[in-house]
Amino acid sequence: MNQHKPKAVILLSGGLDSVTVLAMAKQQYDCYALSFSYGQRHDVELQAAKNIASLYNVSEHRVLNIDLGQLGGSALTDMNIEVPESSEQGIPVTYVPARNTIFLSYALAWAEVLEARDIFIGVNAVDYSGYPDCRPEYINAFGQMANLATKSAVEGNKITLHTPLISLSKGDIIKLGTANGVDYSKTVSCYSADAQGRACGRCDSCRLRKKGFEEAAISDPTLYY
Amino acid sequence: MNQHKPKAVILLSGGLDSVTVLAMAKQQYDCYALSFSYGQRHDVELQAAKNIASLYNVSEHRVLNIDLGQLGGSALTDMNIEVPESSEQGIPVTYVPARNTIFLSYALAWAEVLEARDIFIGVNAVDYSGYPDCRPEYINAFGQMANLATKSAVEGNKITLHTPLISLSKGDIIKLGTANGVDYSKTVSCYSADAQGRACGRCDSCRLRKKGFEEAAISDPTLYY
Repeated sequence: MNQHKPKAVILLSGGLDSVTVLAMAKQQYDCYALSFSYGQRHDVELQAAKNIASLYNVSEHRVLNIDLGQLGGSALTDMNIEVPESSEQGIPVTYVPARNTIFLSYALAWAEVLEARDIFIGVNAVDYSGYPDCRPEYINAFGQMANLATKSAVEGNKITLHTPLISLSKGDIIKLGTANGVDYSKTVSCYSADAQGRACGRCDSCRLRKKGFEEAAISDPTLYY
Repeated sequence: MNQHKPKAVILLSGGLDSVTVLAMAKQQYDCYALSFSYGQRHDVELQAAKNIASLYNVSEHRVLNIDLGQLGGSALTDMNIEVPESSEQGIPVTYVPARNTIFLSYALAWAEVLEARDIFIGVNAVDYSGYPDCRPEYINAFGQMANLATKSAVEGNKITLHTPLISLSKGDIIKLGTANGVDYSKTVSCYSADAQGRACGRCDSCRLRKKGFEEAAISDPTLYY
């Protein structure tokens, strides 16, 4: 508990971006980390989220079970759709329908229960792989809606969505996180990581991450299988 | 299946409002009903939703398990908060943080998977008991956000949120539903219904419903315990 700092809800996937956000938020906020078990293939990401939440000594870490796989439609949750190795044009099959909208809705609910006014999410519009729910115009619209949605907002406690990575390249994110002491060997980004959290090195997410370390001129600590 | 009608996702709680919406939507749409098991006390409502989905022969009825009780903060999901018998001033303790935002987010995800462009929700701003997420300005903001959130919307298939009851009184809703053949004896509105779906007659929801039947001058088919 950090009684002197304001509370914030941090969406924590266990990937490179969200741990960078947590490291930044931690400096000014009393952090409550929120993760989801949503039928994702890369479940080791959740173990990484738990390790990171513990490492950063957050005030609370909740993992909500929400079975997005029940709705189907994505290679990340639907075992009938193959995860592609190379980048496609347009919005990829790894897109999960309305995922950030669902995640942010839960963050909003928890923020209201905690009486927190700040929500952090590590979306990125530069290397966003074509996901519509990572763009600034989407985030702004969610914020508008959020401030009409809750008892807390109606009573004057406006919610602020923080997206500190939204305009950064992957290389810049890695530089920023490294400057903030992030140990990226503890994060999992791969869509097809093995049970030990080792990465394939070939999926979209791995390629983007590799390229980031190259751009940042920082040695890549990722373990590949 | 109704191949000739466009698909729509209908949020179906099993209460009076949502069945009225389903009866209306059914006339023009191929209906996909979506309900939630969210740790609500009045779980018999879900049984009512199943019965109604079957009665209206929807193309599919999904019940998603989402444990909002994990987040706490409402008398409807938190066993430590007592459901009040009389109306309070302001936003009541039966308010569930960000509930409609979470429900609509799932509806949006399912709509995208189904390639449906229409979502129906039975919110009502007249007798809305002080819930902020039942107001037209909230619904409009959700619609704006939704149309920036999904792959489908980005590709030009705009989502429309339908709220046919938003400006009606409870009495008008009952008249409308009755004119559309709704059998309200199959719906459960009570926050403290017993295992047979019989109502307490005293909670906010029961009072509002009773008053609606009086206003509509239609005999109240609700079973009370």
